[in-house]
Formats: sequence, C-alpha cells, structure tokens
Amino acid sequence: MYKHSSSYSLGELADQLGLTLEGDPDQVITGIATLASAGKQDLSFYHNKKFHTDLTNTDASAVILPEEASLHCPANKLLADNPYAAFARATQLFQTGSAAADGIHKSASIDSTAIVGEGVSIGANVVIDAHAVVGANCTIGANTVIGAKSSIGKDSLLYPNVTIYPGVNCGSNAIIHSQVVIGSDGFGFARDGDKQVKIAQLGGVQIGRDVEIGAGTTIDRGALEDTIIGDGVKIDNQVQIAHNVRVGDNTVICGCSAIAGSSTIGKNCIIAGGVGIINHITIVDNVTVTAMSLVNRSIREKGIYSSGTGLSETAKWKKNIVHFTQLDAFNHRLKSLEKTNNK
Amino acid sequence: MYKHSSSYSLGELADQLGLTLEGDPDQVITGIATLASAGKQDLSFYHNKKFHTDLTNTDASAVILPEEASLHCPANKLLADNPYAAFARATQLFQTGSAAADGIHKSASIDSTAIVGEGVSIGANVVIDAHAVVGANCTIGANTVIGAKSSIGKDSLLYPNVTIYPGVNCGSNAIIHSQVVIGSDGFGFARDGDKQVKIAQLGGVQIGRDVEIGAGTTIDRGALEDTIIGDGVKIDNQVQIAHNVRVGDNTVICGCSAIAGSSTIGKNCIIAGGVGIINHITIVDNVTVTAMSLVNRSIREKGIYSSGTGLSETAKWKKNIVHFTQLDAFNHRLKSLEKTNNK
Amino acid sequence: MYKHSSSYSLGELADQLGLTLEGDPDQVITGIATLASAGKQDLSFYHNKKFHTDLTNTDASAVILPEEASLHCPANKLLADNPYAAFARATQLFQTGSAAADGIHKSASIDSTAIVGEGVSIGANVVIDAHAVVGANCTIGANTVIGAKSSIGKDSLLYPNVTIYPGVNCGSNAIIHSQVVIGSDGFGFARDGDKQVKIAQLGGVQIGRDVEIGAGTTIDRGALEDTIIGDGVKIDNQVQIAHNVRVGDNTVICGCSAIAGSSTIGKNCIIAGGVGIINHITIVDNVTVTAMSLVNRSIREKGIYSSGTGLSETAKWKKNIVHFTQLDAFNHRLKSLEKTNNK
Repeated sequence: MYKHSSSYSLGELADQLGLTLEGDPDQVITGIATLASAGKQDLSFYHNKKFHTDLTNTDASAVILPEEASLHCPANKLLADNPYAAFARATQLFQTGSAAADGIHKSASIDSTAIVGEGVSIGANVVIDAHAVVGANCTIGANTVIGAKSSIGKDSLLYPNVTIYPGVNCGSNAIIHSQVVIGSDGFGFARDGDKQVKIAQLGGVQIGRDVEIGAGTTIDRGALEDTIIGDGVKIDNQVQIAHNVRVGDNTVICGCSAIAGSSTIGKNCIIAGGVGIINHITIVDNVTVTAMSLVNRSIREKGIYSSGTGLSETAKWKKNIVHFTQLDAFNHRLKSLEKTNNK
Repeated sequence: MYKHSSSYSLGELADQLGLTLEGDPDQVITGIATLASAGKQDLSFYHNKKFHTDLTNTDASAVILPEEASLHCPANKLLADNPYAAFARATQLFQTGSAAADGIHKSASIDSTAIVGEGVSIGANVVIDAHAVVGANCTIGANTVIGAKSSIGKDSLLYPNVTIYPGVNCGSNAIIHSQVVIGSDGFGFARDGDKQVKIAQLGGVQIGRDVEIGAGTTIDRGALEDTIIGDGVKIDNQVQIAHNVRVGDNTVICGCSAIAGSSTIGKNCIIAGGVGIINHITIVDNVTVTAMSLVNRSIREKGIYSSGTGLSETAKWKKNIVHFTQLDAFNHRLKSLEKTNNK
Repeated sequence: MYKHSSSYSLGELADQLGLTLEGDPDQVITGIATLASAGKQDLSFYHNKKFHTDLTNTDASAVILPEEASLHCPANKLLADNPYAAFARATQLFQTGSAAADGIHKSASIDSTAIVGEGVSIGANVVIDAHAVVGANCTIGANTVIGAKSSIGKDSLLYPNVTIYPGVNCGSNAIIHSQVVIGSDGFGFARDGDKQVKIAQLGGVQIGRDVEIGAGTTIDRGALEDTIIGDGVKIDNQVQIAHNVRVGDNTVICGCSAIAGSSTIGKNCIIAGGVGIINHITIVDNVTVTAMSLVNRSIREKGIYSSGTGLSETAKWKKNIVHFTQLDAFNHRLKSLEKTNNK
C-alpha cells in the first residue's frame, strides 16, 4: 500500500486541529486510518454509530470523536463537534509531496509580460503566455499551459498537463487536476444550408475561490458573456460544463456529469455522477439529482430528483422495455375496462 | 467579463460580411452583444420574434436583422437573409489572440523528415514525428504531439496538449481543442480462456475538411480499416468515437456522446449530449437523437428518437421504477381482466 | 487507407503463431484483412459461420481457420483451435512504429534519483520525478509525466501526454493511452456548514500486469487505502474509476463507463459502454452489464443485467414517459378493477 509518512505528537495535532485532547500529548502519530485498520501510531476517527464496535476494538493510538462517545474509546481522544470535518482537516496534515519541483524549472517558457508571484513553483515544460498572472505560492505542474491574459489566484495547485485557454480567471486556493481544460470554445454554430457556421466564442470563464476541478473535466468559455463557477464549488473527474453555464457557490458535481449551454445551477446543490442537464434550464438552490438522471426541465423547488429505471436481469428487462413502449396502450386498455365496469 | 477588443467601422463590417448597410458607415463598432446587453459601439443581432421587445429597446449601435424587421430597429441596420449565420460570421471578426507564438518555438522537436508548410506557428514543446505533414498556415498549440506519418491540412488550429497518433489524416481548416486524442487504439480483444488477446489496431483515422473537435474528445483508429469522419462534422467535448465508426458529412455530435465500434451515422444528423450508440448499427441521414438516449438498434428512417424516462421527485420515482419491473405482470393482469370482461 | 507495412513468409508466420501450415511456406504475406477485403499477399481469418461465403470467395493468400473449415478454403491455411485469438496474435506482428524516439530524448527531465531500466525509450519533454522507477524496455511517449515514487513495470508502453501522479504502481506489460490520468485525488469532502472540507487522498493506486487503459481514462488514488486494478483488466477510453474501487482480474470495462467510490467489481466481468455503477456496492464475478445501465444496487449472482428504456420515436416516447410517472396510479387502477371483478 502507498504510504505518506509524516510524524506529529498528539499535542501538536490537537493544537493544529483546534481540538481538545484527552490523553498523552507526547504520543507520536505517523499515519491516519479507519478504526478497523488502524494500528499503533495511527490516528483514527469515529463519526457514525454503525462503527461503534470498531471503536471499542480499535488499535489506533488516538481517535477523533464527539465527546459523548469518548467513554467507549480505548485510545487517546481528540474531541470534536464535527469529527468527520476534523478528520478531513487531519488528512491534510498527512499529505506529503508536491506536483512540481521547487522554484521555476529551467525548461519552462514564461512570457516576459506574464506576472508570476512570490513563492511559485513551476514544473518542467510549463508554458505561461503573454499577460497571464500566476498568484503567490501557486504550484504549476509539468507540461501545463496557461493562456494569454488568464489569471490563477494565489495558493492554487495545478497538476501536470492542465490547459488553461486565454481569458480564464480563477480565484485563489484552486486545485485543478491533470488533463483539465478550461476555456475551450463553447459548441455554437449557426446553420446556413447544410453547413454549420462557427460562432466564435468571445466570452471567458470566471471561477471563484476554493474550487476543485477533477481530472479530465472540461469547462467551455462563454459565447458573448462568461461561464461562471461560484466559490467553493467542487467538481469531480470528466465533468463537462458548457458555455454560459452558471454554477452556484458550494455546489458539488460528481464524475461524468454534463451541464449543457446556458443552464444555471443553484447554490449547495449535489449533482451525482453521470447526470445530464439540458440547455437553458434553471435549477434552484439545495437540489440533489441522483446518479445518471436526465434533467430535461427546470427544477423550481428544492428536493431530490431522479430519472431512469431500476436495474433488472436483462431477460426480464427486455420484456419490460417493450411494455414501456406500450404504456399509452396500457392506459387505453385500463380506461376501456374502467368504462365497462362503471356501466 | 472577458473582452476581446477589435475595432471596425460599420462600413467595413458590411463589406466583410457581405450585408447591406442602412445607416452610418463611419460608426465605430468595438464589440458584439445580445440586444438586451449591447451598449454603444456594440453590434447585435435579431433572428427570432421572441426578442422583438429587446430589438425595439436596444442600445446597440447596429443590428444584423432581416429586412422585414428593420422598421422596428432604433439603430443602424445590417440586412441579412440569414441573420443568425451573419451574426456567426461577425463573431469571427471579433475573435483575437492565438493559441501559439508566431513562428516555430525553439523548444519544439520537429523530426527532420517532417514537412511543415509556410506560415505555420508552432508552440513550445510541440513534437512532430517522422514523416508527419503540417499544412500551410496551421497553428499548433504548446505541448501538442503529432505522430509519425500523420497529416494536418492547411489553415488548421490545434490547441495545446492535443495528441495525434501516427497514421491520422486530417483535412484542412480543422479546429482541434485541447486534450483531444485522435488515433488511439480501438478496443479490440480476442478471448483465449480467461485472457484477452489484444487485436493490434492496424487501421488509421481519416477526417474531412472543416471539422471541429471539442476538448477531451477521443477518436480511435480502425482495427483493419480506417475510422472515418466526414466533411463539416462538428464534435463537442468529451465525445468518444470507437474504431471503424463512420460519421457522415455535417453531422453534429454534442458533448459526452459515445459511438461504439463499427457503427455508421448518416449525414446531417444531430446527436444530442450524452447519447450512447451501440456497436455495429446504422443510422440514416437527417436523424436527431435527444439527450442521453441509448440507441440500441439501427435507425432506418429519418426523424427524432429518444429513450429514458422523464425526471421525477425521487420519492415518486422509487415507486415507479418498481412498477417498471412489473410491467410484464401488469400486462398479464390487464389480459386477465379483459378476458373476464369479455365473457 | 492507413497501412502498416511488414513482410513475412507464411512459414515464418506459422512458426511465430504456433500454427500448423497447410500450403506454401514461401508465400509472402504483407498485410492482414477481412475475408471480403483481403487481396494477394494478405492474411485473413475465419472464426464464425456467418462468414462462410466470404471464406469460399476470398482472395486472401492465407487464412487462419479451424481445421474443420479447411476444406472450404481456396487459399493457404493456418490451422488454429481458436482462430480469433490466433488472428489477434497475428495482428500484433503487423503493427509497426512506436510512440517515442529510441533512447532518451535530450529534452526529457529525469530526476537524478529516478531509476530507468535498460532498453527504455523516452520521448521529448517527458518528466520523471524523484524516486520513480521505469522498468526495462518501456516506451514513454512525449510529454508524459511520471510522478514521484511511482513505478511502471517492464515492457510497458505509455503513449504521449499521460499523467501518472505520485504513488502509483503499475505492473509489467501495460499499455496506457494518451491523456490517461492515474492517481488523481478521489472526490472526498466532509461538510462543515455550507463548506466542503477536503479529505486529502492519502492512498495510492495499484495496477496489475497486462492491463490496457484507454485514452482519456481517469483512475483516482484511494482515500486511506489504495485503488486496485487486477491483472489482465482492459479499460476503454474515457472511463472513470473513483477512489478505493477494486476491479477483479480480466474484467473488461468499455468506453465512458464510471465506477463510483469504494465499489468492487469481480473477475471476468464485462461492463459495457456508458454504464454507471454507484458507490459502495459489490458486483460478483462473471457479470455482464449492458450499455448505459445504472447499477444502483449490488449484484450478487452472475448473469446479464440492464436498465433504461428502449429507443422510441420521440413523439411516442413523450407520451410514454408521462405514463411512466403514472405507473403507481396504473397499479391502483388495476387493483381497483381486480377488486370489482372478484366481487
């Protein structure tokens, strides 16, 4: 198994995580693991009653948990109101390594008009075009390209092989994974006879603060105005966001979902994996859409929405999909029976 | 908002777009915008009656519109038979910037046997392999790789981080966005016991003229013969085209759709987003498939086709998907009732 | 058409493929083609009775076929128990060209602590980070990045523009296509009020022997433990594999499918294209899931599974999707009728 190696005393961890320690501040912690798999020198966490037995049997040296569970914990305790969020913060302390060499690699091509902030690490073969701006303390992975007049906010991390087109502004503290493309042309054409005439995509992309964008995701630039991604939005791998889409703050979009042109998604939504959202619709705040649903109309009320059929054995499914095409006939047969019975 | 800056007199625009001007040829135009958002020095367009009020209230300095609407326009007029296509051509005049430095960047690796035409711009770290051909006036973005014996037609634009495998021929005037892969191996194996034996993919890829390919799209090479994309085909982001697929001229394929091996799509089709087309089927010309449909059989007549269910609140949906698996039982219950009633 | 050119005598081919030759060992073979399209000096193959007429009419110089079909073959014969697998092995002999220049390109950036085996070819602008290991006889395509402490087994082929994050171990004989990302962060957050707190992804990725990974596919690293891909797994283009997924040996995953976090897929499964598998479920060995199905529950028995509806003309489909949302009402109407009839 792949292992990050870091080492903290439990006192340091309590301090850095802002948690109350019940136990030995000098205990050394070198890793983080689930209750069931943790061993000596591991930190673990308890946030859900279904892991109660794991808690009482854990070999972890310390556990992040809510105060009311501390009686059942055989290890050192870090008391947290939100133990899962405290665990998330703890994992960040155990992450090691970085995506690029320190400083600016000699093979990078940085235009003389580009502005690169202090403390920036730039990997091999990175290209930063004219008038682009890279904020302080950014890390830019190898072979990444940042287009002209684009800007990346401070403290951001771009992994290798990212492509930022010209005219993209990204807020601070971004994490952008490999093979992401931001600012590619929206898919816009005007029909002229059999031919498609390209509508040049003249807008840009505006991305807020604290946004994460997963590997292989593509975000198109706007046609006349900008595509806009709010603060705190989290986007998984291979998501497609078309031109002039607007995504509200803190919305989460899971892998392989696609949002078509000019649609607006509210704040605090959860779009599960493989969802398709058609163009020119609106989804209000606090909506959840379940996996692989097609959103083919606006959603005006918060709630949970789905489409599709359940999974069946294929032999049965083949019968049922035929009947699906007969539903209108079923309805007529029912009406006819109901009419006869009501005579 | 991101802004391209160009400047034309209205007379120049009328000239370049081949439109009749009613108004002041010396009016300066610096941008292009919708009727509702346009301001002084902006060009706008009117192509649909639902924007009639916007037209009468616009602050644009000039509007592209059909002659019959000109009475209602408070601005200078550019008369067009197809105002939307004229608008599309106008946007192209306002696009600025390019994907690569002028000339050939010193860090590019171009094989001595490759042929590079006149007026070509090649970005940093571009790799052009043996016997590849890049036509005149092409722009090749940074970090793009063009494989051996492949060719790119004149006047084409490849954005950064594109990968063209060996044996790919692409016609003139192509636009290929970042992270596109053309010519990767088709997914072909022969089972031998539990193991899969790879079928080497010996075909290539043939792409016509005036094709656009969106970011992250993948097009596989053929197994024994070539994968073929017709002239004027427009492909959006993250589309997957498998080996030996044939796509007819001027067909439009929207984001995240996938076409499985050896299927043939006709001319002038519209494949909406997220569509899946299974292998070895045929779709005739002039077919539209709506978003996220599964095409699991050939389509022999032009028309519009769909699959899937509508969107519901999840609580209701959970009941209905159970009933979906009972449709065969529903049919038997209906038959039984009908039999009783006909006694 | 794109043509690989190789030349073998039929005797050499029989020898290399381990097949019995009935015919002229000196016959020169320069290509491989289907029975219908093969010409002089082409090798072909017969593995399915539906091609019987093609066999009797073929112009191929030689045909791989089972002994029982040899009477009907007008050409030289290579007798095979499994002719399709023998054909697959033959195609490999006709593949020419490679993804990278021989040796190590002068523009590659290889960390002094990285270990590169004998006979390795490394393309332009390749980056190999600290303590990474590249096994003997590997080919690493241009602009590919291999992260710190990752390892690639011997005899592997990485095409251009691949990104391997740190902490990824890949077995021998891998084929990894362009724009693949392995080891990107799993999509894990803990909610704290409206904000999402990132769970650092501390696990790695373990990939077995003889694995092929298609263009644009993304495989995330594990959260606390590793993501695991078994031996002989074949993954097509644009597949998404989330953190802590486990895929059993020899399973085949077709294009654009996605497997959500912590799900386990058995051995020898076939996951067709566009399938979505939700998180935390288990699929046993020898399961087939058909195209674009949503697997929203565990599959405990081997067999073939599907979801979705068949394809309809959109006008009819619009009626039926309304009825789909009325299935619960249909059920009540049926019950009511049945009650009346049983009185």
